[in-house]
Amino acid sequence: MTLTDDHTVLASSKTPFYQAVGDEREVFRAAAGRGLPVLLKGPTGCGKTRFVEAMAAELGRELITVAGHEDMTSADLVGRFLLKGGETVWVDGPLTRAVRAGAVFYLDEVVEARQDTTVVIHPLADHRRELPVDRLGTTVPAAPGFHLVISYNPGYQSVLKSLKESTRQRFVAIELGFPPQAIEVEVIAHEAGIDEQTARVLVTLGNAIRGLDGISLREVASTRMLILAGGLIAEGLSPRSAVRSAVVQALSDDQDVNRALGELVDAILPRS
Amino acid sequence: MTLTDDHTVLASSKTPFYQAVGDEREVFRAAAGRGLPVLLKGPTGCGKTRFVEAMAAELGRELITVAGHEDMTSADLVGRFLLKGGETVWVDGPLTRAVRAGAVFYLDEVVEARQDTTVVIHPLADHRRELPVDRLGTTVPAAPGFHLVISYNPGYQSVLKSLKESTRQRFVAIELGFPPQAIEVEVIAHEAGIDEQTARVLVTLGNAIRGLDGISLREVASTRMLILAGGLIAEGLSPRSAVRSAVVQALSDDQDVNRALGELVDAILPRS
Amino acid sequence: MTLTDDHTVLASSKTPFYQAVGDEREVFRAAAGRGLPVLLKGPTGCGKTRFVEAMAAELGRELITVAGHEDMTSADLVGRFLLKGGETVWVDGPLTRAVRAGAVFYLDEVVEARQDTTVVIHPLADHRRELPVDRLGTTVPAAPGFHLVISYNPGYQSVLKSLKESTRQRFVAIELGFPPQAIEVEVIAHEAGIDEQTARVLVTLGNAIRGLDGISLREVASTRMLILAGGLIAEGLSPRSAVRSAVVQALSDDQDVNRALGELVDAILPRS
Amino acid sequence: MTLTDDHTVLASSKTPFYQAVGDEREVFRAAAGRGLPVLLKGPTGCGKTRFVEAMAAELGRELITVAGHEDMTSADLVGRFLLKGGETVWVDGPLTRAVRAGAVFYLDEVVEARQDTTVVIHPLADHRRELPVDRLGTTVPAAPGFHLVISYNPGYQSVLKSLKESTRQRFVAIELGFPPQAIEVEVIAHEAGIDEQTARVLVTLGNAIRGLDGISLREVASTRMLILAGGLIAEGLSPRSAVRSAVVQALSDDQDVNRALGELVDAILPRS
Amino acid sequence: MTLTDDHTVLASSKTPFYQAVGDEREVFRAAAGRGLPVLLKGPTGCGKTRFVEAMAAELGRELITVAGHEDMTSADLVGRFLLKGGETVWVDGPLTRAVRAGAVFYLDEVVEARQDTTVVIHPLADHRRELPVDRLGTTVPAAPGFHLVISYNPGYQSVLKSLKESTRQRFVAIELGFPPQAIEVEVIAHEAGIDEQTARVLVTLGNAIRGLDGISLREVASTRMLILAGGLIAEGLSPRSAVRSAVVQALSDDQDVNRALGELVDAILPRS
Amino acid sequence: MTLTDDHTVLASSKTPFYQAVGDEREVFRAAAGRGLPVLLKGPTGCGKTRFVEAMAAELGRELITVAGHEDMTSADLVGRFLLKGGETVWVDGPLTRAVRAGAVFYLDEVVEARQDTTVVIHPLADHRRELPVDRLGTTVPAAPGFHLVISYNPGYQSVLKSLKESTRQRFVAIELGFPPQAIEVEVIAHEAGIDEQTARVLVTLGNAIRGLDGISLREVASTRMLILAGGLIAEGLSPRSAVRSAVVQALSDDQDVNRALGELVDAILPRS
Repeated sequence: MTLTDDHTVLASSKTPFYQAVGDEREVFRAAAGRGLPVLLKGPTGCGKTRFVEAMAAELGRELITVAGHEDMTSADLVGRFLLKGGETVWVDGPLTRAVRAGAVFYLDEVVEARQDTTVVIHPLADHRRELPVDRLGTTVPAAPGFHLVISYNPGYQSVLKSLKESTRQRFVAIELGFPPQAIEVEVIAHEAGIDEQTARVLVTLGNAIRGLDGISLREVASTRMLILAGGLIAEGLSPRSAVRSAVVQALSDDQDVNRALGELVDAILPRS
Repeated sequence: MTLTDDHTVLASSKTPFYQAVGDEREVFRAAAGRGLPVLLKGPTGCGKTRFVEAMAAELGRELITVAGHEDMTSADLVGRFLLKGGETVWVDGPLTRAVRAGAVFYLDEVVEARQDTTVVIHPLADHRRELPVDRLGTTVPAAPGFHLVISYNPGYQSVLKSLKESTRQRFVAIELGFPPQAIEVEVIAHEAGIDEQTARVLVTLGNAIRGLDGISLREVASTRMLILAGGLIAEGLSPRSAVRSAVVQALSDDQDVNRALGELVDAILPRS
Repeated sequence: MTLTDDHTVLASSKTPFYQAVGDEREVFRAAAGRGLPVLLKGPTGCGKTRFVEAMAAELGRELITVAGHEDMTSADLVGRFLLKGGETVWVDGPLTRAVRAGAVFYLDEVVEARQDTTVVIHPLADHRRELPVDRLGTTVPAAPGFHLVISYNPGYQSVLKSLKESTRQRFVAIELGFPPQAIEVEVIAHEAGIDEQTARVLVTLGNAIRGLDGISLREVASTRMLILAGGLIAEGLSPRSAVRSAVVQALSDDQDVNRALGELVDAILPRS
Repeated sequence: MTLTDDHTVLASSKTPFYQAVGDEREVFRAAAGRGLPVLLKGPTGCGKTRFVEAMAAELGRELITVAGHEDMTSADLVGRFLLKGGETVWVDGPLTRAVRAGAVFYLDEVVEARQDTTVVIHPLADHRRELPVDRLGTTVPAAPGFHLVISYNPGYQSVLKSLKESTRQRFVAIELGFPPQAIEVEVIAHEAGIDEQTARVLVTLGNAIRGLDGISLREVASTRMLILAGGLIAEGLSPRSAVRSAVVQALSDDQDVNRALGELVDAILPRS
Repeated sequence: MTLTDDHTVLASSKTPFYQAVGDEREVFRAAAGRGLPVLLKGPTGCGKTRFVEAMAAELGRELITVAGHEDMTSADLVGRFLLKGGETVWVDGPLTRAVRAGAVFYLDEVVEARQDTTVVIHPLADHRRELPVDRLGTTVPAAPGFHLVISYNPGYQSVLKSLKESTRQRFVAIELGFPPQAIEVEVIAHEAGIDEQTARVLVTLGNAIRGLDGISLREVASTRMLILAGGLIAEGLSPRSAVRSAVVQALSDDQDVNRALGELVDAILPRS
Repeated sequence: MTLTDDHTVLASSKTPFYQAVGDEREVFRAAAGRGLPVLLKGPTGCGKTRFVEAMAAELGRELITVAGHEDMTSADLVGRFLLKGGETVWVDGPLTRAVRAGAVFYLDEVVEARQDTTVVIHPLADHRRELPVDRLGTTVPAAPGFHLVISYNPGYQSVLKSLKESTRQRFVAIELGFPPQAIEVEVIAHEAGIDEQTARVLVTLGNAIRGLDGISLREVASTRMLILAGGLIAEGLSPRSAVRSAVVQALSDDQDVNRALGELVDAILPRS
């Protein structure tokens, strides 16, 4: 997969900054054009949320985002009755609002949610494009422009928490990863507000950590972490303190691992 | 089982498109004529929902569909009391509405639901044909035409989630599978809005994946997936991008498996 | 146990059709005469529900039936308070209604229910014959004629789900099984509305499946399944399609098992 | 422990029939005199409930009985707020009623209940003799005569379900068992309304089953079971049918065990 | 640890009878003086509750006691909203009442409670001395004199149920045990109302049981048990019946263990 | 990491006393300046809460603290509807209050909380800086000055309870530990109100316990424990009683461990 030809830069004042790496932008547009739901796959901090924000802005549609979690129920998405003045009044949930408004609905970390959450989106994810609201005894048809997007991190999949096949097969899947070096430098400099020279050192450090063998990290250094470190530097903190807090201490609680990471930092970062 | 003689095509403007593969249409009609409940068995994306939609249309009956899930309760099917103006008002659930209206009630993925859901349909599934509504203290007799249909995917059966024998034995069982090649090409071309030539390439790819040995996939490429890929092609995406998103990335998160699938795609799909 | 002498036929217009096989009718009558509760044991589809319906009709008593399930609470049996016009109003549950009316109360599949359900029937099952309604702070004495009947399938008993000894010992136990061949032919012909010749073929098939060794079935072919197959035949379906749907596909999801059962069907059923 | 000297007979028109076997009557009276709580231990069907009924009658106190179960909460014992006319009204639970009335409160099968049930009785079981009602913010002192009695079956104790030591140590413990032969004959004849000759045959059978080696029964034949069999005989059923239903089928679902028990029955019961 | 010098006797008409064994009284007073929370450790029935009652009386403070249990929630301690006349009215829980009144709050068996109970006391257990009441959106400062005391039995600690380190480290810990022989005789004679001679026999028996090897008892004979036995004797029961009920049967359900304990009783108790 | 150069003392009348040990103050200020969320890591009783209190005072911001626990729900943080005068009225939770007020929000022991708690802070922890309040259907933007701080103890991490990677990576991490000897003496003397001589003995003891090999302690002696012991001494208790209660008994329930700790105490503490 050669990526260098495809990437483009979008940095208008209104559209969130997003650097495409492969054909993700074309696939998303084709799916949106046909109303097909999209599943984003990729590691923590690689830019899934930012990608959806950028695409929604490009397509000129409202974006409604909800993060899945263990205690989320279908009512949290669809809506519920509330007592007002002694009467029960129906209040739409965020999914129902998106369905009525023709907005992009982004359900982040979908595998964290309980199954009734994922099942409730089935009729929205196939040719029916409608949301049954059992408690009202009605079905809400999706307004034109409604687009369903979900995401998850394949590295966190487990036997207990995985996407049901019958849900997964309804989606067009797009895989995102960490960007190649040149793009990542550009992204970090832009997001953290630091010069490209400093950003390049951070990316060098990030790639060195990603390439480490023999130590166990639950995650590698993400683009998001490097942006955090850059932000602390921009605030005047020394690069070593910034990297120690935003990268090393964030990656691990193990004293031995942190010492090894610290030596790597010492080797790469300039003495301030 | 020779299937080629039996299949017929139904494509009127009102009836959903469904291609029969075996005697499923005759068995369904006989069961409906006698009021016997039907259990559909088959893999994800083989067309169970579409089959029920087609049969309901042919029989001229309303169809009410509910997808089973872990958190569904019998109240979600039968109904509940809601507070209105300080009084409790009973609101029928979808099952009760179907029982009163003489509609086809389709409970999709029944094994996902808790047992109180499956037990509540017992009196509707035998000679009694009635729905006890305990909270009202009444029993609702099924109107003529009421027909109970449930489905599940035998491949997902487990010790924890299986249909109770005492439920299962009340049903006439129909097994559905992926259609033979000629029918599948016709279905995909029709549903995705692409030419038969492109559809045939997709079916060739689908059968190649279904025949793969030595790699572990939770599911094979379903008819539904191939229709999704066709839809992206119809939207102008290149066949390779379409298949990568709608089939390869949807089938697996494993980098090795995806590389193997990618090579299969390269061998079968024309270079665009 | 010689059964042939005892069985009698009851087919009046009002009493449900039931063929006695042993001394079940006499034991039930003695227990009812003395007000002793009855526990019915037997496999799925052997006629437990029908037996209770027949006995209630013979004794001239109302029958109230409830199917036990995992999510059933004692309130589902005893009753609950509902909000009406701003006041809480008590609504009797089906058990309380039966206790007040002197009806037969049949709790089907009792081991599926939670323990508070089974414990709530204890004072009704011994010399006290009364139902404490804790939420009302009262105790309802059983009206004359009240008769408590519960059932379960010993084959489904497990460590997790079994009848508490202290519950079980309060009951007179009656074991039911599949009827001998002559009776089963009569039952199937009557229930499905087919001729005795066809019914005999179905019973022959059923007994052949019941006698199969070397294949694993969770259940054998029940009388209820054979009646379902007969009903499809009465509706005009070919015997092979009928048996495939109502017996083979209902018994198993295993392709090898189903092929073996299919060969048995081919050997026994006439070519149509 | 020689028991023959101590047992006495009580059969007044008002007091329930109870045959003392050891010093249980004296211990109960001493505990009641000092207000010490009592724990009854013994197998299912040996007469624990009857003993409490008899003692309450002898002491001239009201008896309030509650059976413990898994879903019982402290509110089920203490009471709860109910909505009436838009206001919340407190309704005493059975324990609070007994505390106020100075009654005997009998919590049967206490280990089935959740811990909040057993903890709620602590202040009633020591020198405080008071019931804190947290939801009212008050404490109800026990009226004179209040006596707390709980029971359980040591044979059912398990790691998951056992009486907390801190609860158990607050109680005076009385162990009950099946009565010696002469007393059991008297009890069965009296309770079932049959002659002593028939009762003696039933007790002989019961003791034979209790002495069986080599077959696995969860429980032995209890006095209660033999009374049930006697009742069916009094209703006109043959002794063999009566014993088969009330004892054999009630004891076991295992075909081999039931055959062995049946042979024992044949050897002991007279041919009718 | 030589204890004989320190113990003192307090038996005024108002203060509950408590016999100090070590420096527990001094530690408690120092902690109370500085407002430091106290954790009492010790076996069931050794007098933890009595100690708190005595100290509260000596310090002239109100005592509010709550027993922890599995189903206790923080709302049970802090308070909740109740419906009155159509309005929600806040009702203080026992902890909030103690905080406002400057009382001693004693949470008995704290490890039985769920974590939200233990976490809710954190701000009361350190320098903040305040109770956040989230549902009211306020924080209640502890009135002068408020003193937090919790207790648990180290012998019941388990992996599932233990005190969180972050809770435990906030407390001054006092360990209590069974008192030495002379004190225990005095306590039992006083509490049960029997002569010192009889009390001495009971303590001799208790120490003999505490010293038994080779039999498995979940607990040894506690001071509380010996007081119960003494109470039955004071009521006129024979010492052997009293000890059998209050000690032997209370300690164990095992027939072999009980026989061994019975022989010990026979050897020590005088024949009456 | 040489710490001696960095530590400074802050003891104004308004700011809580906190002794910095490393660069924690600079990192916190940089993160606060840029609005980046902070994660504090460190053992129980090392001063995490005190550090946040000091920083909030230095930055001149309000501090709102909530301790995470197993039963905490997102509604406990965000707010809920309450019934008032027959209407539902929304009441902000502590997090929403902090977001509106621009306060420092400190969620202590975050891994104890359920996932819906941690997920609800995601949009506050990245560039969005907003709190979606699903139940109101609105999103509350964070006021300037809002700063999110969470903490946990790495030693308590487990498979069941750990911080989600996707949460953790959003935070700048600061690790705190027990202070070096000179600082700890100063802290204990100041907090307990004892002379430096006595404080030095307590720190010597604490470091001796921290250095013990061969005995199993769940935690070492924390600074907080030593302050508690100092407080009891300041109240007039002998140092040995104070240390036995506040350190030895608080650290362990094991008799052997406590004897070993007692010998250590005897060796280090002066005889009083």
